[in-house]
Amino acid sequence: MSSAKTQPARGMRDFLPADVRKREYVIGVIKEVYERYGFEPLETPAVENIETLMGKYGDEGNQLIFKILKRGEHAKTGEADLALRYDLTVPLARVVAQYQNELPKFFKRYQIQPVWRADRPARGRFREFYQCDVDVLGSKSMVVEAELIAAASDALVALGFENFVVKLNHRRILTGILEHFSIPRIQHAEALIVLDKLNKIGADAAREELLIKGILEKAATGLLDFAFWEKELHDSRELDPQWQSGQGPALYNEAALHKIATDWLKESDGIEGVNELAEILGLAKGLGVENRISVQFNLARGLSYYTGSIFEISVPDLAGSLGGGGRYDNLVGMFLDKDVPACGFSLGLERIIVVMTERNKFPAELVTSPADVMVTIWNEDSIGESLALASELRSGGVRVDVYPEADKMGKQFKYASARNIPFVAIVGDDESARGEVAIKDLRSGEQRSVKREDVAKALSPPSGRGIKGEGLAP
Amino acid sequence: MSSAKTQPARGMRDFLPADVRKREYVIGVIKEVYERYGFEPLETPAVENIETLMGKYGDEGNQLIFKILKRGEHAKTGEADLALRYDLTVPLARVVAQYQNELPKFFKRYQIQPVWRADRPARGRFREFYQCDVDVLGSKSMVVEAELIAAASDALVALGFENFVVKLNHRRILTGILEHFSIPRIQHAEALIVLDKLNKIGADAAREELLIKGILEKAATGLLDFAFWEKELHDSRELDPQWQSGQGPALYNEAALHKIATDWLKESDGIEGVNELAEILGLAKGLGVENRISVQFNLARGLSYYTGSIFEISVPDLAGSLGGGGRYDNLVGMFLDKDVPACGFSLGLERIIVVMTERNKFPAELVTSPADVMVTIWNEDSIGESLALASELRSGGVRVDVYPEADKMGKQFKYASARNIPFVAIVGDDESARGEVAIKDLRSGEQRSVKREDVAKALSPPSGRGIKGEGLAP
Repeated sequence: MSSAKTQPARGMRDFLPADVRKREYVIGVIKEVYERYGFEPLETPAVENIETLMGKYGDEGNQLIFKILKRGEHAKTGEADLALRYDLTVPLARVVAQYQNELPKFFKRYQIQPVWRADRPARGRFREFYQCDVDVLGSKSMVVEAELIAAASDALVALGFENFVVKLNHRRILTGILEHFSIPRIQHAEALIVLDKLNKIGADAAREELLIKGILEKAATGLLDFAFWEKELHDSRELDPQWQSGQGPALYNEAALHKIATDWLKESDGIEGVNELAEILGLAKGLGVENRISVQFNLARGLSYYTGSIFEISVPDLAGSLGGGGRYDNLVGMFLDKDVPACGFSLGLERIIVVMTERNKFPAELVTSPADVMVTIWNEDSIGESLALASELRSGGVRVDVYPEADKMGKQFKYASARNIPFVAIVGDDESARGEVAIKDLRSGEQRSVKREDVAKALSPPSGRGIKGEGLAP
Repeated sequence: MSSAKTQPARGMRDFLPADVRKREYVIGVIKEVYERYGFEPLETPAVENIETLMGKYGDEGNQLIFKILKRGEHAKTGEADLALRYDLTVPLARVVAQYQNELPKFFKRYQIQPVWRADRPARGRFREFYQCDVDVLGSKSMVVEAELIAAASDALVALGFENFVVKLNHRRILTGILEHFSIPRIQHAEALIVLDKLNKIGADAAREELLIKGILEKAATGLLDFAFWEKELHDSRELDPQWQSGQGPALYNEAALHKIATDWLKESDGIEGVNELAEILGLAKGLGVENRISVQFNLARGLSYYTGSIFEISVPDLAGSLGGGGRYDNLVGMFLDKDVPACGFSLGLERIIVVMTERNKFPAELVTSPADVMVTIWNEDSIGESLALASELRSGGVRVDVYPEADKMGKQFKYASARNIPFVAIVGDDESARGEVAIKDLRSGEQRSVKREDVAKALSPPSGRGIKGEGLAP
């Protein structure tokens, strides 16, 4: 009986109270910002019909989907009819198709829920993790992109992030470049993957990989020339005095768009991508986030469903991104007999928490104590009176723990102290006879008797935090 | 492409914004109350190792667990190594065993998360549903029971429930009764199931079922006599003038305990159950909830892991319960080489929401509008200015939606109105030239121009609700 495993499943985590509080703080801030942008909450089931998910994430994605066995008789065949949610975008597309008559023309929703991927667990990579998604459906306007970038950016600022950059590119620009080198459509996805990791693996490895993928030598050389050009362009900006003055990013972005248009894209379809990015940059100015954006033509984004702008948020010293997204005008069409334009941004909760923990960005007043006061039990006979005191305090909104058993006072104090509870209340025989309660401040050791009706007042805010409990949310 | 199914999986639900807001309101109130009792939040993964769950819920439970296929090569064998969480109690027992050195001696946790059961879906019965659990581990004291009953009771009161009753019984009393009729241990579980549904199916059907289950005629007759006695006792209380005065329940409970002790249990082990219930009732007095409790000896509770007190909350006109729980002193022992005493209460979120919706218990000021104001787009050229206004208002904490495209004003107003947004802001050419913004109240139709810096002030609280956004949590 006693040897059963007690660990959580591989790649999954238990969150003890202090962890939950951190997570809830971050989620609360993000929600608050998204609501300020007029986004509304949506929740979908953890489990989807398997055909809803299959074929939406590419071959690798299909492999990583957790599949659920059919129940009853079918269990023996090993057939799966359900699967765990892999991201929040495909369920959103399904929801928009299902409730098209109930949803507003422009559906702006946020969704903060876990997703599951059967990835090999690694540092910072889990099999159950939260995504914080924000999407707008129903409009092709670049106002959508600008608002999404501003909302995600504001959320990070509200969490205390400073030096992040929203990288911005466009799928049509990438397509234009690949067409410029006459790389056939069927090889685009693979070429983009190499382009995406060029900075990590270096030019030689990249060339080799392109050739292995069957891309012609001439095209590979051209693509590497382009990548070199992009890197030069990018590196040069930091030498610019305007860049150094902090006014630079917006000016650089405009110049970069001009250069790629004239040097590489010319009359191609890629120009449409340039025009859309230029529009986004202009609108971002109105929203005050133009200097957060960095146009980067080597940004590719893995998922195949993107059709227009793509973006990704990075911070210095963090490999990988804090989030990303883009426009996916055709995904809803996979569930419906018509396309619905769509664009979204997804922030990764786990990475945000990792960075905030490392950089000490959690507010000091984040609740770390389970209660404002612990009522002790003097002896078996006084339990009722201790409970009555707890009850009175709670109806005033004080968070009250009660030691559940009669025990040595020292032991009870030590217990409260170890749990960071700032005060203990003692209903001893003498105090009780006088209608009083002894209050001991466990941080200073000071103890005094107060009238029973004054106990709540005697509990001065622990560590700068007001006594909570008035005013329930709505 | 277009015929893919768009419904959520069978027995599962999508929650559109208005649903999510209701759910979050209820969860927020329950959390707030539980925190006031010193409970701390815990979260565990949706997915557990399959051996963690199997064998904990009886045969029927095993059938209802959603099982997850092994990945990779194993997929073909149909082998399952993981499963979806079936309740929040078994994961809690695992957590207590796993982190015994990190957790306080008395671990008081609440956990509000979904669970999954492959039950046949029916009205009000879903395959994904939320449980709101609150448990205390580490103490055998009846203070635990009293505090749990008070906490669950306070949560319901805070949600606006009035006429609910916390039914209270004890597994040892039930065992005592069954032993009184010499029913062998092995038949106890089945006998209790019949006793539990006696009121629903009637005495004749109950007798037949007892006999089919192999219980001797004499024992069956005795058990029905007992059930009749319990019903009489129970029904008689409402004739009592004290009961009618509202002071009755506590007095009735004491009398009922006295009667069962003298009439049926005598010197048996069942007396220990009576003594514990008497203690709980006494402590409940200190917490002011003694009149919420109704001792009912026909309450059995299905789960096999209960060892002591059991409770269940019912409201008039609702078949089934709003929640229930009990003491389970041996469950942690299934994961650890020692037992840890434990007791808990679980509220069912879906039932609470059903009753609150039927009885109109949601506060009128619950947010039903996605934004406090919608900024319109006058024309293509003024988009930047509209976005700048939105940005200003948002930094003041106003929730602002922006119509994403230049469009006819009438159409934009209609859109905002249909979405319950109380105000629209118009940055027209004339207003813009004067540094003003036109604000239209869509409920009254009234429109006026205000200085740009006064816009926030001009948006009087929609439907009694203040402009939100100041003061992020915590």
